[in-house]
Amino acid sequence: MSGSVSPLAPKSFAEMPPVRGVRMATAAAGIKYKNRTDVLLMVFDEPAAVAGVFTRSRCPSAPVDFCRQNLAGGVARAVVVNSGNANAFTGKKGKAATELTAQSASEAVGCSIGEVFLASTGVIGEPLDATKFAGVLSDMTTEAASDFWFEAAKAIMTTDTYPKVSTRSAKIGGVTVTINGIAKGAGMIAPDMATMLSFVVTDADIAPEALQVLLSEGTGPTFNSVTVDSDTSTSDTLMLFATRAAARDGQKAVTDATDPALDGFRAALNDLLRDLALQVVRDGEGARKMVAVTVEGAESDLAAKRIGLSVANSPLVKTAVAGEDANWGRVVMAVGKSGEMADRDRLAIWFGDVRVAVDGERDPSYSEAAASAVMKEEDIAIRVEIGLGSGKATVYTCDLTKEYVEINGDYRS
Amino acid sequence: MSGSVSPLAPKSFAEMPPVRGVRMATAAAGIKYKNRTDVLLMVFDEPAAVAGVFTRSRCPSAPVDFCRQNLAGGVARAVVVNSGNANAFTGKKGKAATELTAQSASEAVGCSIGEVFLASTGVIGEPLDATKFAGVLSDMTTEAASDFWFEAAKAIMTTDTYPKVSTRSAKIGGVTVTINGIAKGAGMIAPDMATMLSFVVTDADIAPEALQVLLSEGTGPTFNSVTVDSDTSTSDTLMLFATRAAARDGQKAVTDATDPALDGFRAALNDLLRDLALQVVRDGEGARKMVAVTVEGAESDLAAKRIGLSVANSPLVKTAVAGEDANWGRVVMAVGKSGEMADRDRLAIWFGDVRVAVDGERDPSYSEAAASAVMKEEDIAIRVEIGLGSGKATVYTCDLTKEYVEINGDYRS
Repeated sequence: MSGSVSPLAPKSFAEMPPVRGVRMATAAAGIKYKNRTDVLLMVFDEPAAVAGVFTRSRCPSAPVDFCRQNLAGGVARAVVVNSGNANAFTGKKGKAATELTAQSASEAVGCSIGEVFLASTGVIGEPLDATKFAGVLSDMTTEAASDFWFEAAKAIMTTDTYPKVSTRSAKIGGVTVTINGIAKGAGMIAPDMATMLSFVVTDADIAPEALQVLLSEGTGPTFNSVTVDSDTSTSDTLMLFATRAAARDGQKAVTDATDPALDGFRAALNDLLRDLALQVVRDGEGARKMVAVTVEGAESDLAAKRIGLSVANSPLVKTAVAGEDANWGRVVMAVGKSGEMADRDRLAIWFGDVRVAVDGERDPSYSEAAASAVMKEEDIAIRVEIGLGSGKATVYTCDLTKEYVEINGDYRS
Repeated sequence: MSGSVSPLAPKSFAEMPPVRGVRMATAAAGIKYKNRTDVLLMVFDEPAAVAGVFTRSRCPSAPVDFCRQNLAGGVARAVVVNSGNANAFTGKKGKAATELTAQSASEAVGCSIGEVFLASTGVIGEPLDATKFAGVLSDMTTEAASDFWFEAAKAIMTTDTYPKVSTRSAKIGGVTVTINGIAKGAGMIAPDMATMLSFVVTDADIAPEALQVLLSEGTGPTFNSVTVDSDTSTSDTLMLFATRAAARDGQKAVTDATDPALDGFRAALNDLLRDLALQVVRDGEGARKMVAVTVEGAESDLAAKRIGLSVANSPLVKTAVAGEDANWGRVVMAVGKSGEMADRDRLAIWFGDVRVAVDGERDPSYSEAAASAVMKEEDIAIRVEIGLGSGKATVYTCDLTKEYVEINGDYRS
């Protein structure tokens, strides 16, 4: 793990306004790291509506199991997130640790255990000593402040080289609401010390069912369209909370996700999710370049996404990008192996604005110099036209560098 | 591309006996390389039975299309293989190049175009100048010799660091037959300069239909169970030829793959295919370690294979192996993301003979020292017990090193 910040890091961070109804505090509980914060507490003084999307792994962490169970209640009062230990593959001890943490949080905040949500990121298979939370959560509840987003983002970092924050505002029926989010992640997951976690809070008054639809729909083209290394965490967690404080400004509660009053909110939320997801890719382990792979003309949007992920996850495409090599033959290979319908002789490929292949062969006016110039950029767009239908998708990834191998080969030691 | 031989290369090469009925010659046609052979011609003086298995890519190379078409005839008289240019994604020019090559070969050998088989490996998207074959194939036909297997294996190398040869013998109805094979490949495919090609010849008298069944069945646990980087070539080709020369020793022709007379032959063939496939993995680009991933107790053999490939293709598992890190948490992650049924709390994992995880958590008697000692070996066995059924599979891979990134990032330039 090099200590340097990703060259793709944002040049500046968003100024994060407070979101009415949520307070936060961080602490150094000494779970694994020394001299840094490793616990985040979010407190909702009034019950907040909650929605969540979790890893599809068949081996989810204990906190993921715990959140899935509480999500049915639709109400959140507290969120506890720790870095340094994922509490994953920890058997009965892991379940006991989530229960003890939730117990401590419920006592500190004064809510039921069913209103507590948890997330952990860090080493897999190491028992998590939840007694470390008991000592800090009570003080954290008292100290928690509303203008603490940047510090919150820092407390949940693992191999991240920068904190990830984003904010948007929108109007619902003429009333302005705020949406703030934080995220962490540096591999699409390196379960030993990464994982994708994200927590988004709005002061809008939206019912849990509608919130869940908004979040689930928003995840597809954002967090579920980014990949660093094709490896999926046991702990991936994305949660959206609505504190409903905007009701005091006269915002009428929204209970149906299809309500046109949500149009502006949906757009702002999706934009924020995309911003956070791209910040995760741009902090991909060892990343030097960001790649957007757009697939058009596939049989369906789903087919386009699968072809896009086949290109974005191909080690040979990713090493070519790292080497600034306009190696479009590897894109052909990745399209061909995706399993989705493709017709070699209809395929066209662009690197940036340079068409490199068309009608099943190298572009007649192919210029190695022009294609190579595109590859020297920091942000690279690869576009593939399949020529079969109208399915379309864009996925995002980064290059595969020696530093990725170094970070993940030397990690635990 | 470093010039050094893989540390996992065989300590010695098999002595390859002649196989009656096939002669070979190599030549330097100057397709891409200088000062080395780059064309192989195999001649069957009597019509040989032929079977083939090809890439599943939707963007196959022109020679793959050509072979698939001729395979229906079931008869081979000539095989032309070149390295340096894959004749893939070359459009109409590519098809014309296969036709011209086959024409040259048919004239040189004196057979029909439908009895010629072709394979090309090398750069994608670069038109192949097939006129270079016309000048050499006639002389090659004259010179072709039966004791030329090692030279044949050398002529088809690209990023391979050693030639891959294997030989077995078996009895069919009391008559001894020989099986010889050569292979090339150093990524499960790096389409810009690798690809998996393999040609196997026996003097047994076996009809094409039976030969195809034997080959298709034999491919599953061998060539289709190895992966270097999860990338599938546009050009992968595995062919099996039977010259029928053993008929002269009284071997009775076999026309049915289920004939018990083939039991010994089938075992010998599968053993040879496995040997060649493992030689390909051991020459994986940048490989320092070979990994056998065995999955047991899955819902089905297919589920076991998919879980095994999920582990074997995981960049995080492969970098951990490169770093000699007994990071079993990443194996949990890879099992979880495979999409196949798994129950976290029944999972057990072994590195070599060391059980590192059981019943959904770290083994109570886990020893980091013992697990780390396993990781220092050159050959590493990872075993996963799913605990749900009786499905079983073993897949083979290599580690992911900085050298892989270097080879594939600097390749074309």
